[in-house]
Amino acid sequence: MKAVRLHQYDQWPSVDEIPEPEITGPLDVIVRIGGAGLCRTDLHIWEGQWAPKTEIALPYTIGHENAGWVHAVGSAVSNVDVGDAVIVHPLVTCGLCRACRDGDDMHCENGAFPGIDTDGGWAELLKTSARSVVKLPDGVEPADVAAHADAGLTAYHAVKKAVLRGMLLPGTTAVVIGAGGLGHIGIQSLAALSPADIVVVDRSEPALELARTCGATHTVLADGSHVDTVLEMTDGNGAEAVFDFVGEHGTVAEAFAMTKRAGSQFVIGYGENIDMPTIDVISTERSFVGNLVGTYNDLAELMILAGQGKVTLHTRQFALDDAVEAMQELHHGRLQGRGILVPA
Amino acid sequence: MKAVRLHQYDQWPSVDEIPEPEITGPLDVIVRIGGAGLCRTDLHIWEGQWAPKTEIALPYTIGHENAGWVHAVGSAVSNVDVGDAVIVHPLVTCGLCRACRDGDDMHCENGAFPGIDTDGGWAELLKTSARSVVKLPDGVEPADVAAHADAGLTAYHAVKKAVLRGMLLPGTTAVVIGAGGLGHIGIQSLAALSPADIVVVDRSEPALELARTCGATHTVLADGSHVDTVLEMTDGNGAEAVFDFVGEHGTVAEAFAMTKRAGSQFVIGYGENIDMPTIDVISTERSFVGNLVGTYNDLAELMILAGQGKVTLHTRQFALDDAVEAMQELHHGRLQGRGILVPA
Amino acid sequence: MKAVRLHQYDQWPSVDEIPEPEITGPLDVIVRIGGAGLCRTDLHIWEGQWAPKTEIALPYTIGHENAGWVHAVGSAVSNVDVGDAVIVHPLVTCGLCRACRDGDDMHCENGAFPGIDTDGGWAELLKTSARSVVKLPDGVEPADVAAHADAGLTAYHAVKKAVLRGMLLPGTTAVVIGAGGLGHIGIQSLAALSPADIVVVDRSEPALELARTCGATHTVLADGSHVDTVLEMTDGNGAEAVFDFVGEHGTVAEAFAMTKRAGSQFVIGYGENIDMPTIDVISTERSFVGNLVGTYNDLAELMILAGQGKVTLHTRQFALDDAVEAMQELHHGRLQGRGILVPA
Amino acid sequence: MKAVRLHQYDQWPSVDEIPEPEITGPLDVIVRIGGAGLCRTDLHIWEGQWAPKTEIALPYTIGHENAGWVHAVGSAVSNVDVGDAVIVHPLVTCGLCRACRDGDDMHCENGAFPGIDTDGGWAELLKTSARSVVKLPDGVEPADVAAHADAGLTAYHAVKKAVLRGMLLPGTTAVVIGAGGLGHIGIQSLAALSPADIVVVDRSEPALELARTCGATHTVLADGSHVDTVLEMTDGNGAEAVFDFVGEHGTVAEAFAMTKRAGSQFVIGYGENIDMPTIDVISTERSFVGNLVGTYNDLAELMILAGQGKVTLHTRQFALDDAVEAMQELHHGRLQGRGILVPA
Repeated sequence: MKAVRLHQYDQWPSVDEIPEPEITGPLDVIVRIGGAGLCRTDLHIWEGQWAPKTEIALPYTIGHENAGWVHAVGSAVSNVDVGDAVIVHPLVTCGLCRACRDGDDMHCENGAFPGIDTDGGWAELLKTSARSVVKLPDGVEPADVAAHADAGLTAYHAVKKAVLRGMLLPGTTAVVIGAGGLGHIGIQSLAALSPADIVVVDRSEPALELARTCGATHTVLADGSHVDTVLEMTDGNGAEAVFDFVGEHGTVAEAFAMTKRAGSQFVIGYGENIDMPTIDVISTERSFVGNLVGTYNDLAELMILAGQGKVTLHTRQFALDDAVEAMQELHHGRLQGRGILVPA
Repeated sequence: MKAVRLHQYDQWPSVDEIPEPEITGPLDVIVRIGGAGLCRTDLHIWEGQWAPKTEIALPYTIGHENAGWVHAVGSAVSNVDVGDAVIVHPLVTCGLCRACRDGDDMHCENGAFPGIDTDGGWAELLKTSARSVVKLPDGVEPADVAAHADAGLTAYHAVKKAVLRGMLLPGTTAVVIGAGGLGHIGIQSLAALSPADIVVVDRSEPALELARTCGATHTVLADGSHVDTVLEMTDGNGAEAVFDFVGEHGTVAEAFAMTKRAGSQFVIGYGENIDMPTIDVISTERSFVGNLVGTYNDLAELMILAGQGKVTLHTRQFALDDAVEAMQELHHGRLQGRGILVPA
Repeated sequence: MKAVRLHQYDQWPSVDEIPEPEITGPLDVIVRIGGAGLCRTDLHIWEGQWAPKTEIALPYTIGHENAGWVHAVGSAVSNVDVGDAVIVHPLVTCGLCRACRDGDDMHCENGAFPGIDTDGGWAELLKTSARSVVKLPDGVEPADVAAHADAGLTAYHAVKKAVLRGMLLPGTTAVVIGAGGLGHIGIQSLAALSPADIVVVDRSEPALELARTCGATHTVLADGSHVDTVLEMTDGNGAEAVFDFVGEHGTVAEAFAMTKRAGSQFVIGYGENIDMPTIDVISTERSFVGNLVGTYNDLAELMILAGQGKVTLHTRQFALDDAVEAMQELHHGRLQGRGILVPA
Repeated sequence: MKAVRLHQYDQWPSVDEIPEPEITGPLDVIVRIGGAGLCRTDLHIWEGQWAPKTEIALPYTIGHENAGWVHAVGSAVSNVDVGDAVIVHPLVTCGLCRACRDGDDMHCENGAFPGIDTDGGWAELLKTSARSVVKLPDGVEPADVAAHADAGLTAYHAVKKAVLRGMLLPGTTAVVIGAGGLGHIGIQSLAALSPADIVVVDRSEPALELARTCGATHTVLADGSHVDTVLEMTDGNGAEAVFDFVGEHGTVAEAFAMTKRAGSQFVIGYGENIDMPTIDVISTERSFVGNLVGTYNDLAELMILAGQGKVTLHTRQFALDDAVEAMQELHHGRLQGRGILVPA
C-alpha cells in the first residue's frame, strides 16, 4: 500500500509502497483511511522536535488524525464490523489500567500513539484497536471529520471540563484565544454546551470572521489593547474560563490577565512558559489547567455534535500523493482551514 | 394601598384597602409590584390545602411570584437603589445559617415565604429583603418575568442540577413531562444549557406545539402509548434525565419507566405518590431527585437568560382588581399562558 | 472439578464433579477459588426468585462473591499472571460500550453475572475475564476478602458516592440502617473516607456492638423510638445521608423520616416499596438514590483499604463440600459473620 | 483599650491606648479578643511589603487571626449572643454579591480584611460582622484555635477541594511540602477527610517528627534527593495531589516534579514564580490550583474537627504587651509552634 514515510528529519517525507498492516491481536482493527488530518505537530515531527521524546526508528508513517472505514478486525472485536465508517481515537489504550478503567484513556499506562510513536495514518491502511474506533453517525463522511481525532477532541475536552465544573453558567464569560484549527471547534463546542458569553481574541481579522460564524458573542482583534478590551467587557473582572489555544507570543500571560478571581486558564496551545508569581496565583485563587486530547467518550460525543451539524470543520483536501505539498502549504502559512489527506 | 386578601378558605378573596408596609429592619426592601404571577398553588391556598402547613391567620395577601421596582430600602441595603427594576426571590432568608452560607437559600433555617406564610405580592407594594431582590437586565419588564420567581426558577434549578451532574452531554436524552407553566421554561432552559435531545410528552397538542417553539427535539402525545414511544426513541433504554412537571395522573410511574439505568427522575410536579419496588430502584441504580424552587443565584442566572431572549414566558395580564376573575379562569381551565396581575 | 450445582429450585444443591472451564477467548481468565461468599441472594436463587429474571437453564453453579488465584489466562491478558492472588469483580463486562468506557462497569450493555446468569464460583475453578480480576495487596488472603466482591463493593460504592457529592463533611451525619454483612463494611468505609458522625441503627444489640468496633459514633437500638432518637441526635433535622442496608420491615419510610432537607436516602437493601407522597419529596428536596454493586476501580480501592487493615470482614469458613450446611445455617439465622466456602 | 499599632514600616509597632470600636451598622459584631495569631504575613506587613497593595494609612492595628467572645452586636445580628465564644473569619463580607451568594466568601466583591486593610485583632477588642463569626464548640478555647482563622482555614480549604474533586481516594497519594504552621493542619485535615497516603517533605527533622504525630504515612527529609524519593514511593508516577505550603526555595518546581499525570499541584505558600514550559503542563494534563483562605463554612467545619480533637494546633502564648518580642522570636526563627497573643 501507499504510505507517507519520514526517512530523515528535516527532509520531506516520500510516498512509498510498503506492506499492508496485518491483524495480529484479538482486539486489532485495521482502518482503510478516508481522510487523515495535517497538523502543526506533523511539521514539528518533520523538524525532529519530537525525536528525543519518542525515539522512534526511521522511516515511519506519520499522521495522527485519522478516519475511514473498518477493513479488518481481530477475533475479539465486537463493537464494529467491516465496512463501518469510523473515526480513530489518537491513542491505542490497554483498557486494563486504573486510568483506562476510569475512562481517562489519555492517561493509559500502556498506550501507543500512532503517527507519533508508531506508524500512523497517512497511508491507505492504519492499524489501531477496537478500543480506539468510534462509529460515525449516518451521513458523516470520514474525510470531513478526521481532524476531530486530535484537534477537535482536544478543544472539546477542555470545554467539557469547564462546563462540568460549573464555570460556564448564564452570565459568565468564556474567552477563546486563537480562532484557528482547535479554536474554531472550541467556539462551536462552547456554543453547544453552555450559555456563556464567548469572547474570541485573534490577531487575524479573517479568523475573527470565522469565529463569528462559529458562535462567538464578541470578537476582539489582538492589536495590543486586547487584554484591556476583554477586561472592559467583563466589568474589569476578567472571564471565568480562558481557553488559550495558542500558548506562545505572550498569550500565556495575557490569558492569565484576562482570568477572573477564582477562574481557570485552560492551557491547550504550547510553546512558551507559564511564568507567574505564586502570590498572583494565590491572592486571586486562579488556576492553570492542563489539557491533553480527550477520552474515547469525549470523541464519541463530539461525533454526535458533528452528526447534528452543531460542530463543523473547515477543511481543504489533498490527495495522499500530494502530502508534501500540503505540508509546504501549512509551513508557509498558505493553508486556510485544516488540511486533509485523502487516499485515492 | 390595594391588596388581594383571603378572608376565608373556599371563598374568593377581595380587593381591600390596607396600610402600606413599612421598613422596619435594616435589610428590608419594599417593592412596588409591576406584575405578580398566578399559580395553581394560589388555588390550593384558596381551597385551604396549605392551611395546616402554614397556620397563617386570615385575612392575608396572597401572591408569591413577584416583580416590580424598588420603592424603599432599609439602612443597610447596598445592592439595590430605589427605582431599580427587580424580580423577587420567593423566600426571605436569613443569610447566616449553614444553608444560606452555602448558597442553598431554599433550605434557610429561618426563612419566610411571602404569599404563603406572610403577606405576598398581589398588592401595590410587597415587603421583602435585600437578600431576595435580583436586578433585572436592561429592557426586561417586571410583568413579563414575574412568573419566573417561582415557576421559572423551579424549572431552571432542576435542569441546572442535571447539567452539573454531567447527565446531559451530547447523545443523551432529557424527557420533559408536561409542557405547561413550568415545563415550557424547563424546555428552554435545557436548550440553553445543554446539547441533549429534548423529548416532550404532553396530553395536549397545543402544549406540544408550544414545546416545539421552545426547543423540543421531539414531541410525543400522551395517548397511552407514550412510554413505549419514548423507549423506542431511546433504543429501549430510556432517558438519562426525566423531568416530571406533572406529578399526578400516573406520570410518576411513567417517568420511572422512561428513565435509563443509572439515570435520574426529577420530581417537580406533585400530587400522587412515588410507589416503586426497591428492587427496581437498586437493580438499575436509578434515582428520584426532589426539587424545590432554586437559589438566589439560580434566579439571577435565569434573568440573564431572559435578558438574552433565550427564555421567554407566555403570559396573559389581568388588572389587580380582576384577580378573582383570573383565578376563576385558571380554575376552569380557560387560562392560556401564565396569568399575571398588574396593579393599575 | 467439584462444583455446587443447583438442579431444581427449592431443593438443596449438590456437590458434583463437572468438567473444568477452559480458556476460549483472548481475555478469559480462570481463577482457582480460594474463597466464595455465601449471600442471602443465594438463598433467593435457591428459592427460585431470580428464575424469571435470569432464565438460566438448570443445573448450574452458584456463587457470585469470589476470590482466589489466577489459574490460566487467555492470549491477550496482560494485567495478571498465573498464580496472582485476585478478587473477582461480580460482572464480566465488555469494555467497549459507553458505560464501560466511562468506568461504570455495572451498567455494561453486554455484561454477564457469574453465579446469577452463568456458572459461578462455588467450585474449584471459575471462568471470568481480565477485566474482572483485581490483584490483592500482599498479605491479603482470598478467603478473607471474597465477600467484598459483592457485599463490600456495594456498601463501599454507596458511601463513595455520598462522599464525592460533598454530603459528608465535618459536622454532618451519616445514618446506617442495618449493621449486617453490608452494613458493617459501610460503617468502616464511612470511617475511612469521611469525618461525618456515623449513627448506626439495628434491631440487634450484638450487631450494634459490632458497629461500635467498626467505627460507629453512636448506635441506636431499633426499638420503635429509633426514628425519634435519630432526629433528636440531629437537632430535629435528620441526617445528610441515610444508608438503608435493609429495605424491608418499614426501614424505607423510616430512612426517609431520618433524612434532612436536601439530603439523600441511599437505597441498598431491597424488598419493600418506596411509597412516599411527592409533596414530601419536593417540599424538602430530598432524594432516593439507587445503588448497584460498584465499579472495577471501586473494588480495587476497597482492596487497598483491606490491605491497610481499614476494612475487615467478619467471616466463618466452610468446606466447599459443606455448602448446603452453610446455606442452612444462614437460612435458619444461625450464621454469625459472612459464610465463606473454601475448596479443599 | 490596648492595641498593637504599626506607626512606620520597618519600625516595631507599639502598644497604644486607643478608643474602643463601636457598633455603627446593624450587622456589626465586636469581639473581645481571647487570642490573636502571629503569622509570617505580619512580618511582611511590618516590612512594608503589603503597603502598595493595601494603601492603608498608618498607624493601624495589625492581627488577622482572631478569636474571642462576643462583646457587642448590632441591631440585626441574630446568629450570636453577647458572651458567645467565637472564631473570626478573616474577611468581612457583604453577603449580597454573586460570590457571597455562592458561599465563596473569599471572593466577595466588597470585602474588607481586618489586620491587613483595616484595624485588626492585636487588641482588646475587634470590630467585625455577624457574617464573620463562627461559634466555637463547647470546650474549645479561643486562644487555642485563633490561628485557624487564617493558617488553618487555608490548609483545610485546599485539602477539601482535593477531596471533593475525587483526587484522594484509597490508593492515592497526597504530598505535603512543609510541615509548619499551615502544613501541620493540612496533614491533620488530610487524615480526617481522606484515606490517601500522606507523604510529608520538610527540611527539618523536628518538623517531620511533628508530621508523624499529625498523621503522616511517610516522611521524607528534603535533603536534595527528596523528589526522587517521592517518585520511588509512588512507582515513578508521583502523587495525585501535591500541597505546596512553602512556595519558595525551589519547592514550586519540585512539587510539579512530584505530581502525577492528570494530577494537581495546590499552590498555597508563595514567594517564587511558577516557571514551567506549557508543553510539560499539557503533555501530562497537570494543573496548578491557586488557594486563598477559605469560606465561612470551611471555617465552621474546621471548628467541628477542632472540637472533636481531630485537628489541634501547636501554639506558644504571649501577652499582648509582648507582641514585639513575639514578632522578634518569629523573625529570628526561634518560635516553635504558632505564636498567639493573649490580652491580659
